[in-house]
Amino acid sequence: MAAIVVRRIERADPEVIDGLAACGVATVHESQARTGLLASNMRPIYPRAAIGGSAVTISAPPGDNWMIHVAIEQSQPGDILVLAPTSPCEDGYFGDLLATFAQARGIRGLVIDAGVRDIRDLTDMQFPVWSKAVFAQGTVKATLGSVNVPVVCAGAAVQPGDIIVADDDGVCVVPRDLAATVLEAARARLANEADKRGKLQAGASTLDLYDLRAGLDRLGLRYV
Amino acid sequence: MAAIVVRRIERADPEVIDGLAACGVATVHESQARTGLLASNMRPIYPRAAIGGSAVTISAPPGDNWMIHVAIEQSQPGDILVLAPTSPCEDGYFGDLLATFAQARGIRGLVIDAGVRDIRDLTDMQFPVWSKAVFAQGTVKATLGSVNVPVVCAGAAVQPGDIIVADDDGVCVVPRDLAATVLEAARARLANEADKRGKLQAGASTLDLYDLRAGLDRLGLRYV
Amino acid sequence: MAAIVVRRIERADPEVIDGLAACGVATVHESQARTGLLASNMRPIYPRAAIGGSAVTISAPPGDNWMIHVAIEQSQPGDILVLAPTSPCEDGYFGDLLATFAQARGIRGLVIDAGVRDIRDLTDMQFPVWSKAVFAQGTVKATLGSVNVPVVCAGAAVQPGDIIVADDDGVCVVPRDLAATVLEAARARLANEADKRGKLQAGASTLDLYDLRAGLDRLGLRYV
Amino acid sequence: MAAIVVRRIERADPEVIDGLAACGVATVHESQARTGLLASNMRPIYPRAAIGGSAVTISAPPGDNWMIHVAIEQSQPGDILVLAPTSPCEDGYFGDLLATFAQARGIRGLVIDAGVRDIRDLTDMQFPVWSKAVFAQGTVKATLGSVNVPVVCAGAAVQPGDIIVADDDGVCVVPRDLAATVLEAARARLANEADKRGKLQAGASTLDLYDLRAGLDRLGLRYV
Amino acid sequence: MAAIVVRRIERADPEVIDGLAACGVATVHESQARTGLLASNMRPIYPRAAIGGSAVTISAPPGDNWMIHVAIEQSQPGDILVLAPTSPCEDGYFGDLLATFAQARGIRGLVIDAGVRDIRDLTDMQFPVWSKAVFAQGTVKATLGSVNVPVVCAGAAVQPGDIIVADDDGVCVVPRDLAATVLEAARARLANEADKRGKLQAGASTLDLYDLRAGLDRLGLRYV
Amino acid sequence: MAAIVVRRIERADPEVIDGLAACGVATVHESQARTGLLASNMRPIYPRAAIGGSAVTISAPPGDNWMIHVAIEQSQPGDILVLAPTSPCEDGYFGDLLATFAQARGIRGLVIDAGVRDIRDLTDMQFPVWSKAVFAQGTVKATLGSVNVPVVCAGAAVQPGDIIVADDDGVCVVPRDLAATVLEAARARLANEADKRGKLQAGASTLDLYDLRAGLDRLGLRYV
Repeated sequence: MAAIVVRRIERADPEVIDGLAACGVATVHESQARTGLLASNMRPIYPRAAIGGSAVTISAPPGDNWMIHVAIEQSQPGDILVLAPTSPCEDGYFGDLLATFAQARGIRGLVIDAGVRDIRDLTDMQFPVWSKAVFAQGTVKATLGSVNVPVVCAGAAVQPGDIIVADDDGVCVVPRDLAATVLEAARARLANEADKRGKLQAGASTLDLYDLRAGLDRLGLRYV
Repeated sequence: MAAIVVRRIERADPEVIDGLAACGVATVHESQARTGLLASNMRPIYPRAAIGGSAVTISAPPGDNWMIHVAIEQSQPGDILVLAPTSPCEDGYFGDLLATFAQARGIRGLVIDAGVRDIRDLTDMQFPVWSKAVFAQGTVKATLGSVNVPVVCAGAAVQPGDIIVADDDGVCVVPRDLAATVLEAARARLANEADKRGKLQAGASTLDLYDLRAGLDRLGLRYV
Repeated sequence: MAAIVVRRIERADPEVIDGLAACGVATVHESQARTGLLASNMRPIYPRAAIGGSAVTISAPPGDNWMIHVAIEQSQPGDILVLAPTSPCEDGYFGDLLATFAQARGIRGLVIDAGVRDIRDLTDMQFPVWSKAVFAQGTVKATLGSVNVPVVCAGAAVQPGDIIVADDDGVCVVPRDLAATVLEAARARLANEADKRGKLQAGASTLDLYDLRAGLDRLGLRYV
Repeated sequence: MAAIVVRRIERADPEVIDGLAACGVATVHESQARTGLLASNMRPIYPRAAIGGSAVTISAPPGDNWMIHVAIEQSQPGDILVLAPTSPCEDGYFGDLLATFAQARGIRGLVIDAGVRDIRDLTDMQFPVWSKAVFAQGTVKATLGSVNVPVVCAGAAVQPGDIIVADDDGVCVVPRDLAATVLEAARARLANEADKRGKLQAGASTLDLYDLRAGLDRLGLRYV
Repeated sequence: MAAIVVRRIERADPEVIDGLAACGVATVHESQARTGLLASNMRPIYPRAAIGGSAVTISAPPGDNWMIHVAIEQSQPGDILVLAPTSPCEDGYFGDLLATFAQARGIRGLVIDAGVRDIRDLTDMQFPVWSKAVFAQGTVKATLGSVNVPVVCAGAAVQPGDIIVADDDGVCVVPRDLAATVLEAARARLANEADKRGKLQAGASTLDLYDLRAGLDRLGLRYV
Repeated sequence: MAAIVVRRIERADPEVIDGLAACGVATVHESQARTGLLASNMRPIYPRAAIGGSAVTISAPPGDNWMIHVAIEQSQPGDILVLAPTSPCEDGYFGDLLATFAQARGIRGLVIDAGVRDIRDLTDMQFPVWSKAVFAQGTVKATLGSVNVPVVCAGAAVQPGDIIVADDDGVCVVPRDLAATVLEAARARLANEADKRGKLQAGASTLDLYDLRAGLDRLGLRYV
């Protein structure tokens, strides 16, 4: 792939993005037919971070963070950086200086299928990162990559402008053109769950609430 | 194995169970001749959780959480759910609604050789889970499993009614019929350690406290 | 290797050691040409620990912690224990009693390419450990190893008396005879970064600050 | 995602497909700018298998092989099955009976980001499989998936009808609309390599053949 | 657990054992309701080995092979050694001398959740081993373990005298008292598969042979 | 570390090197007090390769194979290339063209803590490689590394000119100045084993041959 930077990408409606973030990863994932999760080794560097934003994607060589600098310059407030290395790597592509740059541009966080460093500083700055490693290993600026091209990050296909939702449960991507529909389904799901939660606290069984007994009987579960 | 639910299991004396929980995983493990630990990748979702309880075991297909619903209904206050998938899986079998159901029934926690989700909610509810993954991946209800049958969970054999002890160090299982004996040994060990701790703080060397010098000499350790 | 304990090792100047600790792992690693990092799976048992000290090295058999007792006795205030098992192992070689012994001797922490236990107690004592596992698995005292010999720990070569720096980002080793030089480079780096941080907060781009645009042009990056 | 089976997919020219297969994975990957590789844990069940074909994609639940049966029926001679589970799984989705069915339909092989079994029979049949595990674990037929939808398999995005090339080095996917272009580049690359191989056998150095000395000088490599 | 050697164990009927071996791992596993598999990382050191035998179990410390010597002496012709370390270990517990000893006693093979070495010699001797690692790391003889006690090996519970079946697909354990029943089911399964294989070669579809279409319809699979 | 190429290294006596190779990895490792093994994930690309040679070491950036070209030019007949990436990487640094170059210079093989490709060609050429991955991922030539500096490769410290022994069991490094001594010990060990092998084939027990019974008694092993 030639090294390119796509300057203009479409983004979803900010209210839809923030709505999805408020619903959280597990609910959003369920609301788009259980799709869109990144791999479970993508963990946040500190607890209780929860963000949503538009994906600015980065395809970068192993051990080379040059394109992050380029990508930040192409970002808008509300964006989330999504970096996929071109081969498996756990180097620390990102630290406190890049976070300072990113935060000054209004970027909400980073999702990286590699490593991150300076995590104490990033925690103090409240700049959240989801990564597969914490590793101080430095990187170079020697080989080009691309910005705002389709990538596969931690097992999920991400298009620039897709919506990223990330919290303590991990990271989920929502295709931009489905965002509004998924939000609607997610909100309906949350309302339904709120109702169920009250009934469970009051002593109900999920076997009744979800009408699960008939199926168990039909398949032949035996109580002994 | 035919899909069955064993309704009645024997449990240990509640005072013994709570006594074991108070001793903690490392001490209990040592007190039963260094046996019973689950694999080290079973980590708590939040720090400082520490529980003990009777195992209600669940054998469940990969990606199918139906039997958790069944198992919670079979549980008593003070129980701990122990789920072993029938093949390796890291899906999020358990989240905040099931935790609400479980907590309403007095269940003390979950040990699962798979994934868990909604961990921020579970933390806020103080419902502890030890798992090998945090993963929002949803599950289905399509295939039966069994409840209260012998399982191997994270490398350890667990019988229904065995005592589970879990804390920041991981998870340990104590066979039910050995529980009182193990507790006695564990308390003796703690008493002995308290004595040693004081001497170490006062400047003693473990080589003297544990009488280790003779063995080093006999095997030929050379100080140079 | 015959089992030996080297009683006298050279250590670096305490002010240099503390200076390196204050710079942190990422900066120190960069300041010695991106060398010296231990593998990324060496994680601290609690956040915000940050230490520096002289390495007292331990080569120990799998599942045998005898030589830790020996090593603590050979340590001085300000030292850090560095344990490399002779084959891969995740047993819990170290717990609260050994930590009490070590802390009484002024040891600042433990770096172990294996497991640790009693981590709640260690956290309460503020005795930091970097390890690849938290595992309650007990060990024996049956086979000799060596103390203060060269080891490879988590992928890095460590000589006794080398400087260990450890924080939230992981662990780095600095060769003793380079310590002063590395410290000087690290401090220069931090000063330079402080300047850049201010400019980035004020709106500068790293592409200008680091003079990165010409290289991108030369290699042919296309903005589309 | 609703469960669907797309019956008609576009396929590349058979001669282009066979041409790419003859070039091999490493050359094809290089010829499309080092893109398209599946993860390195996708290994063949026997050595010296080397195939190319059109991807018939399968998105299947963990531990459920129902959709493979459906997919085989949708395949044509020359196709390759590509299965991506909806969450990580290593169950043995595929064995000798399904291979018999697939081989009877002219399918050339299977690429599966999960497990396979009956590998001795498959070897005797010369039906090649690239998988991340060999595991006898059986599967069920209880939950739907989809056939011929876009999938991410072992970290690579695959569209139905894309060209799969697989050999001892692993698996590579070529986007269908680039197939002819990539083939041309691959053949040019092979011709160039044949020339270089002869020169190297005759004693040339790659530093001269690839004109690498100037760059080493410019960056400051020192021979000491 | 006190260190013990159980001298007399019950074994299954040799004809049943050989019958199970002839059916193979995948079929035996299916014939006992998909249970009994050891983890998929237990791989044979050479292809086309296929054995069955009675388990002589070994619980051994990490890095200590003393109890293998003891166990071989307790074995009978037709037995298979099954070693589970008391904590994770990949040392090479077993090599050509122990294999010579074992083969002289009629032992058919070794299943070890650790490492093996001298694999070229073992291959030449045709003494098969299933292990999680090939590793030359030597072991000591310093700490006791037990022989013929229940163990968990690679995730499966094994009782002494249980039947072990191992081939290219991995390893399966059959409880001794179920052996005859499982063999009967396995043979029925094989007969049924032979019939299906012929029909598939002749052009049938598994969707018809297994009567799978109705279920697909009922759950709503759409062909588009 | 500045990028340097050390042109002259000391090598061991060729007869000693070949003698060590003939003893094999397991015996050599035992004969130097069980030290020197590289990690068990370093596997040969084809069975029955067995070589010994002098280490020409390469420290290379992730995804950059430039320094291999440089290193081959510095090699002599009988050398073995040993590559350690500066951070974890599984890219395919080495393929058939580099192997042609290396073989033309008399290099005996490659040990690489990363990936290799073109393994079918390398097998046909009988150019052996021990690596942690087979991966077609291509590399660049953009950043310098060093040749013939001390490295840590797959967990073992290797000095240029050390002796590398590699076979089906993995890879072992012997310090150059110990080579003759280790060879002597290895040959004595082999002679001793030949004697024991005969006795075992004739029916002896290792418990007698190694005089193991007294120790079992002393530690309290009970036969029940």
